[in-house]
Amino acid sequence: MMHLLTMADLQPEEITSLIVEAESFAKGAVWQPERSVYVSNLFFEPSTRTKCSFEMAERKLGLEVIQFEASASSALKGESLYDTVKTMESIGVDALVIRHPEDQYYDELKETCGISILNAGDGCGHHPTQSLLDLMTIKQEFGRFTGLKVAIVGDFRHSRVAHSNADALRRLGAEVVFSGPPEWFDENSPYEPIDRAIRTADVIMLLRIQHERHERKYRITREEYHRRYGLTPERERRMKPGSIIMHPAPVNRDVEIAGGLVECPRSRIFKQMENGVYVRMAVLKRSLSQIKGGHNVEVFAKKRALAR
Amino acid sequence: MMHLLTMADLQPEEITSLIVEAESFAKGAVWQPERSVYVSNLFFEPSTRTKCSFEMAERKLGLEVIQFEASASSALKGESLYDTVKTMESIGVDALVIRHPEDQYYDELKETCGISILNAGDGCGHHPTQSLLDLMTIKQEFGRFTGLKVAIVGDFRHSRVAHSNADALRRLGAEVVFSGPPEWFDENSPYEPIDRAIRTADVIMLLRIQHERHERKYRITREEYHRRYGLTPERERRMKPGSIIMHPAPVNRDVEIAGGLVECPRSRIFKQMENGVYVRMAVLKRSLSQIKGGHNVEVFAKKRALAR
Amino acid sequence: MMHLLTMADLQPEEITSLIVEAESFAKGAVWQPERSVYVSNLFFEPSTRTKCSFEMAERKLGLEVIQFEASASSALKGESLYDTVKTMESIGVDALVIRHPEDQYYDELKETCGISILNAGDGCGHHPTQSLLDLMTIKQEFGRFTGLKVAIVGDFRHSRVAHSNADALRRLGAEVVFSGPPEWFDENSPYEPIDRAIRTADVIMLLRIQHERHERKYRITREEYHRRYGLTPERERRMKPGSIIMHPAPVNRDVEIAGGLVECPRSRIFKQMENGVYVRMAVLKRSLSQIKGGHNVEVFAKKRALAR
Repeated sequence: MMHLLTMADLQPEEITSLIVEAESFAKGAVWQPERSVYVSNLFFEPSTRTKCSFEMAERKLGLEVIQFEASASSALKGESLYDTVKTMESIGVDALVIRHPEDQYYDELKETCGISILNAGDGCGHHPTQSLLDLMTIKQEFGRFTGLKVAIVGDFRHSRVAHSNADALRRLGAEVVFSGPPEWFDENSPYEPIDRAIRTADVIMLLRIQHERHERKYRITREEYHRRYGLTPERERRMKPGSIIMHPAPVNRDVEIAGGLVECPRSRIFKQMENGVYVRMAVLKRSLSQIKGGHNVEVFAKKRALAR
Repeated sequence: MMHLLTMADLQPEEITSLIVEAESFAKGAVWQPERSVYVSNLFFEPSTRTKCSFEMAERKLGLEVIQFEASASSALKGESLYDTVKTMESIGVDALVIRHPEDQYYDELKETCGISILNAGDGCGHHPTQSLLDLMTIKQEFGRFTGLKVAIVGDFRHSRVAHSNADALRRLGAEVVFSGPPEWFDENSPYEPIDRAIRTADVIMLLRIQHERHERKYRITREEYHRRYGLTPERERRMKPGSIIMHPAPVNRDVEIAGGLVECPRSRIFKQMENGVYVRMAVLKRSLSQIKGGHNVEVFAKKRALAR
Repeated sequence: MMHLLTMADLQPEEITSLIVEAESFAKGAVWQPERSVYVSNLFFEPSTRTKCSFEMAERKLGLEVIQFEASASSALKGESLYDTVKTMESIGVDALVIRHPEDQYYDELKETCGISILNAGDGCGHHPTQSLLDLMTIKQEFGRFTGLKVAIVGDFRHSRVAHSNADALRRLGAEVVFSGPPEWFDENSPYEPIDRAIRTADVIMLLRIQHERHERKYRITREEYHRRYGLTPERERRMKPGSIIMHPAPVNRDVEIAGGLVECPRSRIFKQMENGVYVRMAVLKRSLSQIKGGHNVEVFAKKRALAR
């Protein structure tokens, strides 16, 4: 099997090659496994875009999606994630996409599980396909990472993607700075006030504020957050020419970003979602090309007369 | 895109042509789009028959159904319907079927959304495919609308379909009267007591009583409702020869209609459900024949050797 | 239609023939109906393995699965199971797989419903595909039933499968004894203390303890249950040579069985799950071979060039 658990598992050249693959899917390339391949999406937290995006990617690859509903599963009877995963493996699922509230839930699975696991988010940890779609969107825009300046703005500490994005971007040659409320950052991160960041960054990468959690602790209202750290129309006007706005969504309108800017010309927010499908096709293909030998099945690219 | 939001959007000739199409599907006609088409059913209220009926229609047309579970979606994190719809559009869904508790939820979507929306019920407002299946069932029975008398019985005020059914039936040439508790009607509606209506109408169209809501307000028990306004076996015996009974279901047995009459020879209640699938195939075909140019795809009728 | 409601409906030769069919599917045999066949899985209780296993079986047979979510269905509006089933029949579903908390829920359906019902568990009653997969696993191991001794250990009274397994095993020629807390058995059952049973049985068939229900009544803790009646590593060492361990899962680790034994060489627990898919393919094929005449469709085995 070939898992995808964190961005740290991927070498820079693998990242580049996954983005190239994703771009080729975006342009209409078709790849489908020769035999029926079964996948299941185990989401133990609410999700629209990641779950539907994975399902779309799976369908476009012609995979059979075995539906799994956490709220109607034996998890309710106290079944452990390990046993649920072994069950899915036993019934013949070839790969699992998993989102789970626990950090590094996959540690107990990665050695014992005989099928590929694709991490769709663990606790406050990792979310590699989100990172990849962010990277693809930047690549699409600028054609390179070297020399770019990316400002990540917001709740760095609780963000699944901020750390791995920052790490991957640096490995690929970009400069990364952080902005937003200073109390949310690591000591070692280069910090830049929001009004300086917007003037100099090529990419403003906003993070979702989980304000329900923070308001009490930091005593900052939605309005105050927006005024002090949010992307207001006034700040957008001072952004560097040619720079873009990104956000993993769902957006808190008028908190991280003014509602009117979500679909402004600089925004790549919906483009990110679109790219998400192609990135997931690429990582699914990567995992399925390594299907366990027990199945004794050739999986290879196949151009079909009719695109599905 | 080509939405279907309310019956008022459809000219009488369009209604007729959708019914003709549905009847042709009922007789086994096959139509499938040339390329893979992706749809999703966004149901923000409980539903069995409408949701499963749409999914059946979609499968019979060979569409790919991207599963969406409202109770496990980002709507739980406060995401707006607008953002959910834009997300589905971004990931490449071609059409959305939506049921939502808010009246005219589609007002903010119909201009901004680049894909087709099929309304599967909005608040106490509209439910055009239910209207169409009702009309198809009447047409199937009598071959015409002109000269028919249809009595709509029950909770006119809170019914999604009563108003649009009444309007469409009149536009198609039928006479429509209302019966049931007088306090539930508009001032302008021709009212007829139940015992006169059942003797003269060709169609008794019962509405579901949301008794949990009304009992307190109108202080009428289920038993009393049934006795005063319900279709009892005694009243059924006095119905006009050749007349039929309709109900959108789910039925409150022994409230709107005696339990024993649900499957009686006059009842078309399960026939309505059967017709629902064909009507939905017809409206899906109508929307998909207008798929947005961006996809650059020919969608056309295709007879296949093996019916799916 | 051809229902599968209880094991008692099946003659020994039918059981044998279903197991043979399942083994042939396990070896890669392919059977798919000629026309599109629609099934739906109506699960009114949480389930992972049974529901996903049925869906996997359905996909492997090339069936179209109409998704049904009990928690978002009209059952919430008080719709009866009968009306839900008639709805699914009306929209054109060919077969229904049902799990329901009520014992013998199918009594009101079996005569009136025009499509096949496959029972996936009723209350504390029956669960025929679980029985069949248990039997298949035993057959696979020993090649016969005659002369085998099977010890069923645990909560006999509340187990869906224990009674029907016992009955079927006896009809097929095996000896069956029961073990565990004496207060959970029928008077007429041959009882054997656990420490004698493990030394003499060819199959130790553990039952899931619903301890949340029993602890209070029988004042027995999880630890005490494990010590007195559970399969501890010490007991496993004294098991008869060549004997196997079975459990329907989900397992309560360290209650019915020590966590470390779940995947030990004697354990067939995950093998049972694997077999479940093939058994369900066999019973689905049995029901679909008898599709109602109204559809006028030939359903027959078809070897396809590419296995799905």
